[in-house]
Amino acid sequence: MSDLDQLAINTIRLLAVDAVAKANSGHPGAPMGLAPAAHVLFQQMRFNPKDPAWLNRDRFVLSNGHACALLYSLLHLFGYDLGIEDLKQFRQLHSKTPGHPERGIPGVEVTTGPLGQGVGNAVGIAIAQKHVAAKFNKPQFSLIDGYTYCFFGDGCMMEGVASEAASLAGHLQLGNLICFYDDNHISIDGDTKFAFTEDVGKRLEAYGWHVITVKDANTDLAGIAAAIEEAKKVTDKPSCIRLVTTIGFGSLQAGTGSVHGSPLKPDDIIQVKKKFGFDPEKTFYVPKEVYELYAKTSKAGAAAEQEWQQLFAKYQQQYPELGEELARRLTDKLPQGWEKALPRYTPQDKALATRKLSEMVLTSISDIVPELIGGSADLTPSNLTRVSNAVDFQPPSLKIGDYSGRYIRFGVREHGMGAIMNGIAAFGSNLRPFGGTFLNFVSYAAGALRLAALSHHPVIWVATHDSIGLGEDGPTHQPIETLAHFRAIPNLMVWRPADGNEVSAAYYKSLSSEKTPSVIALSRQNLPQLEGSSIEKAAKGGYTLVSTDKPDVILVASGSEVSISVEAAKVLANKGIKANVVSIPDFFTFDRQPRDYQLSVLPNGVPSLSVEVMSTAGWSKYSHEQFGINTFGASGKAADIYKSFEFTPEGIADRAEKTYNFYKGHELLSPLNKAFESIHYF
Amino acid sequence: MSDLDQLAINTIRLLAVDAVAKANSGHPGAPMGLAPAAHVLFQQMRFNPKDPAWLNRDRFVLSNGHACALLYSLLHLFGYDLGIEDLKQFRQLHSKTPGHPERGIPGVEVTTGPLGQGVGNAVGIAIAQKHVAAKFNKPQFSLIDGYTYCFFGDGCMMEGVASEAASLAGHLQLGNLICFYDDNHISIDGDTKFAFTEDVGKRLEAYGWHVITVKDANTDLAGIAAAIEEAKKVTDKPSCIRLVTTIGFGSLQAGTGSVHGSPLKPDDIIQVKKKFGFDPEKTFYVPKEVYELYAKTSKAGAAAEQEWQQLFAKYQQQYPELGEELARRLTDKLPQGWEKALPRYTPQDKALATRKLSEMVLTSISDIVPELIGGSADLTPSNLTRVSNAVDFQPPSLKIGDYSGRYIRFGVREHGMGAIMNGIAAFGSNLRPFGGTFLNFVSYAAGALRLAALSHHPVIWVATHDSIGLGEDGPTHQPIETLAHFRAIPNLMVWRPADGNEVSAAYYKSLSSEKTPSVIALSRQNLPQLEGSSIEKAAKGGYTLVSTDKPDVILVASGSEVSISVEAAKVLANKGIKANVVSIPDFFTFDRQPRDYQLSVLPNGVPSLSVEVMSTAGWSKYSHEQFGINTFGASGKAADIYKSFEFTPEGIADRAEKTYNFYKGHELLSPLNKAFESIHYF
Ligand SMILES: [Ca+2]
Ligand SMILES: [Ca+2]
Repeated sequence: MSDLDQLAINTIRLLAVDAVAKANSGHPGAPMGLAPAAHVLFQQMRFNPKDPAWLNRDRFVLSNGHACALLYSLLHLFGYDLGIEDLKQFRQLHSKTPGHPERGIPGVEVTTGPLGQGVGNAVGIAIAQKHVAAKFNKPQFSLIDGYTYCFFGDGCMMEGVASEAASLAGHLQLGNLICFYDDNHISIDGDTKFAFTEDVGKRLEAYGWHVITVKDANTDLAGIAAAIEEAKKVTDKPSCIRLVTTIGFGSLQAGTGSVHGSPLKPDDIIQVKKKFGFDPEKTFYVPKEVYELYAKTSKAGAAAEQEWQQLFAKYQQQYPELGEELARRLTDKLPQGWEKALPRYTPQDKALATRKLSEMVLTSISDIVPELIGGSADLTPSNLTRVSNAVDFQPPSLKIGDYSGRYIRFGVREHGMGAIMNGIAAFGSNLRPFGGTFLNFVSYAAGALRLAALSHHPVIWVATHDSIGLGEDGPTHQPIETLAHFRAIPNLMVWRPADGNEVSAAYYKSLSSEKTPSVIALSRQNLPQLEGSSIEKAAKGGYTLVSTDKPDVILVASGSEVSISVEAAKVLANKGIKANVVSIPDFFTFDRQPRDYQLSVLPNGVPSLSVEVMSTAGWSKYSHEQFGINTFGASGKAADIYKSFEFTPEGIADRAEKTYNFYKGHELLSPLNKAFESIHYF
Repeated sequence: MSDLDQLAINTIRLLAVDAVAKANSGHPGAPMGLAPAAHVLFQQMRFNPKDPAWLNRDRFVLSNGHACALLYSLLHLFGYDLGIEDLKQFRQLHSKTPGHPERGIPGVEVTTGPLGQGVGNAVGIAIAQKHVAAKFNKPQFSLIDGYTYCFFGDGCMMEGVASEAASLAGHLQLGNLICFYDDNHISIDGDTKFAFTEDVGKRLEAYGWHVITVKDANTDLAGIAAAIEEAKKVTDKPSCIRLVTTIGFGSLQAGTGSVHGSPLKPDDIIQVKKKFGFDPEKTFYVPKEVYELYAKTSKAGAAAEQEWQQLFAKYQQQYPELGEELARRLTDKLPQGWEKALPRYTPQDKALATRKLSEMVLTSISDIVPELIGGSADLTPSNLTRVSNAVDFQPPSLKIGDYSGRYIRFGVREHGMGAIMNGIAAFGSNLRPFGGTFLNFVSYAAGALRLAALSHHPVIWVATHDSIGLGEDGPTHQPIETLAHFRAIPNLMVWRPADGNEVSAAYYKSLSSEKTPSVIALSRQNLPQLEGSSIEKAAKGGYTLVSTDKPDVILVASGSEVSISVEAAKVLANKGIKANVVSIPDFFTFDRQPRDYQLSVLPNGVPSLSVEVMSTAGWSKYSHEQFGINTFGASGKAADIYKSFEFTPEGIADRAEKTYNFYKGHELLSPLNKAFESIHYF
């Protein structure tokens, strides 16, 4: 390697060393080991630091997100809006250089850190690249032809989420995905021989990947470059370049676990700076030549973008419809008036499962919202996520679809699906991913769901079989804690619609959202179309469905329990107790309504009872008393289970009467009144 | 195959067909395809249906739990306490034959259904077998020498949890684990070519497994038997026998997705019964010869157990100490007085992180409680789960431990760890597994955690870095929704101890528990030893730590916020507001205290404020007002983050004052008063 290469690589290493040392916190080892590969990779990547959102850039995902000092150093050196002062603020509160990469920092594609997620994100981005390319590219107009690169470490490869995503990537033949495995034989417990002795390359080959090894990725820059070239030539398989590296290269502790997650000792820092020919007195030092070297790449990237913009302008002339569509998508706006296609219902319409009503929404909007892309984790006939004219997203060679297809067969890989959806959403061009599974198995993907919320990916989980109402499959499949869990995640909508209008509202709000993901919990069983529901009312997150003059009690319910509560109100009326029925399909949305409106739904002075066939946790926000199931469900016919737990009109009326009697004659505020403002999202 | 073999296999198939048909719900396809393998496998297994808990039985796990009609049929035919009437009650409420296998049914080792979990359970059982064998076996006394068998399907192999567990099983060289892969090319979406085209055998080989293929597992019984023999001979690798089968063998829909999850059509049932030489008029028919055939196996199993009991009696004479220990363990009781070893603290003892205090508990009890076995998901130096004299559970050939070791290096495989812990707990001999990771990443294992609670496995999650107090790692690592989620899971203790005495109490209750798993949330940062805490008080789940005469307000806190609340009470005292401080380290345990005691802690008439640095969801059970963080955390120094969210003595006092003022002069009941009894666990 040239002296300049060496200088640049060591600059990256020492920026990471200095950032971690100044913070007295962080991970210097992986940056020092991966700097050579990053140096080679980034110089041949196509990106414009002045426009990090340019659609046809190459993407880079750091799945081993703890190595972010590497990424921040690169972003700084290549000219992203991340100054040397930002590097000095590494891991400090409100800095642009937090402890793990967060989407929103210029040049950071996805939020990573929780291991394995980045691999799934990269698969998602690569899927999006393939799909948008298949949809928009035309002869002479190679609008989308970038690569998705990903670094990952041993930790990522041990995580199931990465395994799931890697298997699907192999199946999908994603030749545009090129990953680098940092094979440094070290994880936090020490040598990987303690727990991780599998043959990673062989495993990836079994998934259908192309695997290349660079035996000395500490020094063999030509070998790294050649491996990237080889990987690019393999267009029908994702590639993994196995980099044999030394963690903490240059440190006295190189090759040991002690450089993984702790700053280098002061004398080690002096030692390594001297060894690299740097002045040990200087910190955060960047030689001018290094800035200049990397500026070439960025300049070339800026030129490439300019060329692309010209190409796109021509494209818009030659293919006005597609051009207009892509231009629209680049504004992150859905087609105007798309929401007019959402189905509306009257009480005369027949009772249907909300999962079926969800299918009807997807059927209605699929052609109108062409950026809708998604599928199911091998539960298509149960989730009803595939509209009848769908084309599968598949490698053309399998002859069961092609890359322009929008229906993704995720396989039984919920966690991988979640990470992949996040990656698709991160790609840009307004792709709106959805993924189906049973509500109970969204929990398998909790890690990815949380990251969707944290990273503002407005993905949609189509979560059917949402309660004990699924019946015979029993307690292993029946959610109890699930909605309490999801409702406690900041920035997540958790819809549980009660009928067709509410299903339409759930999709309306979910697709209108630009920063908030959704889980839409849907019933397996049929539910009647409600008198008094509407898309507009449900779109407020909560509303009064049955209104009486001066109610004695308010029943507050969601989903399948709303119609039973309406029946319960009739039972109560027969007893001389006047009950309102409130439907709250989504807490997040209702929480954001004006105070006056909220209080009109849940006024002072009226006792309220929440009704939902799962954990009562969280419902005290909107009710004085809670009727729920704080135990596990059971296998049996749905009607038998409902009856057994007393979620019948009579059982609900009984609790409502007790609630009414309990508070009768007592002063009572609406549960919405609180002593102080809480710390919440936004 | 002989006519009798054929008859027996078809009997199994038709019992499954009839059970599913009668329930009009269930999965006939896999039972029909797997019946030949089950027939061969079960006849060569060692078990005694009259004593399903016999320690040295072979174990069988049905990871594709939806195929439970197969398992129930086998259990019936081999003479377990499961009558033909029970098969007729398949999938009916409160039957012994629920929609997925549930631990507690005679002969069912683990609860399965959520895909992939059973593979992890089987790995855990095999680990337990290896460990108990290494600990107790002596020359001439092969007390533990059984095998762990597992059936799994395509769905299991797509799930990350199974991948994680399989990789670890290969590393651990579990030669006693023999799995059968039902390679029938069908999953719910249809042909596996839609999403699952990887080379499963090659993948397992990459993990270090021995793979054998039976090309026609519909008819080649000799081939299946030979494969099992071969697998048993490979003692240093887990084996996978790939069975190429036809889903729904015999049905008109054989080999298609339509036999996966729906009953056979009535005319198809007639057709298949005729084809198999059965009377189509008869249902649930078992030829006498079939009962007789399988009774031979069960009789041999009973004899084997008798022999074993004699051997064990001799063993107890020859090795009295070990014999006594194993005999004790078989009663599921810990050594008497073990809890006396739990450390106790006074306010003079130094401030320590509760993760450190957890390490001190483990150090104190490790030798005294020899059935404690566990480790960490590659976070040993952070979780502090490894006591200094620990021996690693490792294959001896690696020379870094042996199978008698009790410290398990799980690798970065939280979900696999959870499923494996459940399996270890299911093995018997009172093994008490624990597993360490960051609290936030217990969520990766949500599927397994839930199953621990549902199946009554008293496993312990050592969940360190439990809040924003972990500091620089930032929001990707800081739990917000996590405790709300876990507290909403029925039958789960969620401890968040505030100091050393509370840590000891958490372990005391967790290890004393026989049916309830625990998550113990532990701080990264140091916490003072509290005035007024004790193991006995904390063991009630909640108690008054700071008591004043006629308090104006009660601060209710957990973990690291308890000591800050004590300081806040002093700030309030300076303002003339008298505050009690209540510590609630575990909701589950506090909920089970007598009403009088609960009301003595949270009396009527006093407003209360909960204080915890994460989601407020769930806290209304014990407080009128909630101070928490319903948004994501941040990367920075822990002290800076606490200050930024105002979780300081002043910030808490401010909310407490507002709470006091808000309720002043108003009638107020304790939040413990409810209008009716809720449906809860137990
Ligand atoms: Ca590593
Ligand atoms: Ca299958």
